[in-house]
Amino acid sequence: MKLSALNGPACAVEMIHAYSLIHDDLPAMDNDDLRRGRPTCHKAFDEATAILAGDALQALAFHVLAHAPDITVSAEQRLEMIDILAQASGSRGMAGGQAIDLAAVGRKLNIAELENMHIHKTGALIRASVELGALSAKNIDPGTFERVSHYAKCIGLAFQIQDDILDVESDTETLGKPQGSDRERNKPTYPNLLGLDGAKEAALRLHAEALDSLNQFDSQADPLRWIADYIIQRKK
Amino acid sequence: MKLSALNGPACAVEMIHAYSLIHDDLPAMDNDDLRRGRPTCHKAFDEATAILAGDALQALAFHVLAHAPDITVSAEQRLEMIDILAQASGSRGMAGGQAIDLAAVGRKLNIAELENMHIHKTGALIRASVELGALSAKNIDPGTFERVSHYAKCIGLAFQIQDDILDVESDTETLGKPQGSDRERNKPTYPNLLGLDGAKEAALRLHAEALDSLNQFDSQADPLRWIADYIIQRKK
Repeated sequence: MKLSALNGPACAVEMIHAYSLIHDDLPAMDNDDLRRGRPTCHKAFDEATAILAGDALQALAFHVLAHAPDITVSAEQRLEMIDILAQASGSRGMAGGQAIDLAAVGRKLNIAELENMHIHKTGALIRASVELGALSAKNIDPGTFERVSHYAKCIGLAFQIQDDILDVESDTETLGKPQGSDRERNKPTYPNLLGLDGAKEAALRLHAEALDSLNQFDSQADPLRWIADYIIQRKK
Repeated sequence: MKLSALNGPACAVEMIHAYSLIHDDLPAMDNDDLRRGRPTCHKAFDEATAILAGDALQALAFHVLAHAPDITVSAEQRLEMIDILAQASGSRGMAGGQAIDLAAVGRKLNIAELENMHIHKTGALIRASVELGALSAKNIDPGTFERVSHYAKCIGLAFQIQDDILDVESDTETLGKPQGSDRERNKPTYPNLLGLDGAKEAALRLHAEALDSLNQFDSQADPLRWIADYIIQRKK
């Protein structure tokens, strides 16, 4: 994705996403050599560069939100965006979820624990990205914000379930990362806990709940509906 | 330092500092086992935890600046603080300086290159911490801000020169980290380039320039003068 094509908040979310992927791929973390079919940052360069690139990208996200001239909302709304993104990135979001994930390898989690992990690990940033979009509108009312936020929570979880399904059903070439890597690492997944059919049903339920959150909105909200569809239909 | 004793901006700076130390100590970076006389984060826990703890601390710093109720300045000033801290942390600050540092190991730098590295690596955060203090005052005028900022640039460089001097002159117990570690790694230092006496003279010159930047301020600025004194007199 070309960052120059995005507005400030979208850029910032993409930077937080990129930093988390770079750090997650590190040998001390997931130790992945491939990401989207290309060498991961620490393979293309080295570990120190990957650590620093991640750190710098996280900082850059907050610089963009504090500074980007294309954000026309009030200073208070910018602060709210920064706060949401900081929490989604930190111990109550991605970093916390990743820590739960690392601690869970080789352990048996129940479905509530698995869900808690994913709400933090991948769900928090998906939710933040939608919330920042909502906050880009001037004077959004709290009810609308809550509905959009709930939609985002649902698609965030559905995204993760679909990820687990693809790790079972897809292949390395389509995924752009090694297929079956979760199973190899004995990671807890939805198909492990619910069976493959149970996982697919759970994804469909969340998809329906996401669309339900949007039912007061007209066709202007269709892009959000398309994203929900894409998340459970994607093959990689 | 107890974070609860600090106000919001000071807390945020301390968190950025802590994250950078945790990441700098990692095996892929400086590979240090000791920090302030205690095991570094990745020794006390593990590498993955140290990477995540650093990431979460950086995020927390921006959460605090966006959210802390004890910051009584305007939303615009908060955004300015966030922007300064983000730049000091990222590729134009610490992370960039650290990258220059890693690329410089085993290479000969001249004095301008060495200074450029330290202005980023350690100077940027020292400068940001002073600038955030200045911005905590309501309606600070640009001239005052500039003078305080220049003071901070000078003490930041003086701090690094003193660090290099201590790496030659002090001992492991006093430093709380292995003495002589810069020399062992063949890192470029001020004493290497200027000799030990030349490095001491350079630190004294910067100390004088720092105090000179404050000469329009009365005794209320004495704590800044004490910090400048401390930086070149410290033994660890």
